[in-house]
Amino acid sequence: MNRLNKSGYHSINGIILHPVGIIHNTITEPSLVAGKDGLIMQAGHATMVERVRKTDTEVSRIVIREDLEGILEGIEEYSHLVVLYWAHAVPDERRSLTRVHPMGRKDLPEVGIFSTCSPARPNPVLTTVVRLVGRKKNMLEVTGLDAINGSPVIDIKPYVSEFYPREGVSIPAWMQQIQDEIGRAGGNFY
Amino acid sequence: MNRLNKSGYHSINGIILHPVGIIHNTITEPSLVAGKDGLIMQAGHATMVERVRKTDTEVSRIVIREDLEGILEGIEEYSHLVVLYWAHAVPDERRSLTRVHPMGRKDLPEVGIFSTCSPARPNPVLTTVVRLVGRKKNMLEVTGLDAINGSPVIDIKPYVSEFYPREGVSIPAWMQQIQDEIGRAGGNFY
Repeated sequence: MNRLNKSGYHSINGIILHPVGIIHNTITEPSLVAGKDGLIMQAGHATMVERVRKTDTEVSRIVIREDLEGILEGIEEYSHLVVLYWAHAVPDERRSLTRVHPMGRKDLPEVGIFSTCSPARPNPVLTTVVRLVGRKKNMLEVTGLDAINGSPVIDIKPYVSEFYPREGVSIPAWMQQIQDEIGRAGGNFY
Repeated sequence: MNRLNKSGYHSINGIILHPVGIIHNTITEPSLVAGKDGLIMQAGHATMVERVRKTDTEVSRIVIREDLEGILEGIEEYSHLVVLYWAHAVPDERRSLTRVHPMGRKDLPEVGIFSTCSPARPNPVLTTVVRLVGRKKNMLEVTGLDAINGSPVIDIKPYVSEFYPREGVSIPAWMQQIQDEIGRAGGNFY
């Protein structure tokens, strides 16, 4: 891993991202907070589930840097987009967690971070499929974005359903249990 | 955007990622190269399509940093994963492209980078759904990974099909044309 290449990537200095925009919405509190011993669910489980579901209808505004003029051209032809954003509320020292109880729930098995969508991960780049509801110049209006207000945007990609398999997909029982309980299409909470 | 926060993110210094692993496979040439005027398809279109399809069966090995011991725990319970990797073959100066002809094809309309999955983007963090075929300690064997050999891995997430809508999804005619021509489930080529 210790090498230089064309992208200037170097394992010691790391990879540098420059945010392309910022997310504005009314979600000010992360639903999960990473403590030194793992994830801590804010408020009660019912409140958390309510917050998770709220993001399905919550309209977020994504304001893209004005110097990137033209980069959104043609994006209105997509009904859905994939948003990559930075979980800026995750303190650097929590990026070293390797195992968590999903959602901080002790009734769920402790698993590796890469088996979860926990925001506390080595590189908290979160990805969410959103519905594009409108565009005004360099501002996109979307629903279903589970980011908190002020999150830096790293990338926006088209959502093409053919890229995502449906057949032969299996997930752990605990993840299926969460899907059955929350019944939400997407989320970086568990 | 010009602010500090808990993650240490600052718009001037950017966000720093530390790769969690590296991808090993036999794909040494990117199918697309970003030139100063846009994307350039390597070899002919047929060869390119062949390369794109090859990734469906090509086995890539993802070697995770040994200091992240435990972070893969339970991952074998997933049939598919989402891999985030760094397109290290994209030169920094190509990260400022804002419009391209998808796949470098002049017969397709020039659109904004965010309307495409082009590897040449402001932050070339590419995401691909892969099939997990095996794990040996800190090494994952996957198929369907469209990364070239030596790509740094940024993150690995579970693939949960419920996160990805199927109904009411629309894409531009040019993207549908590519899907019809290549008929591949996924790709960071167009």
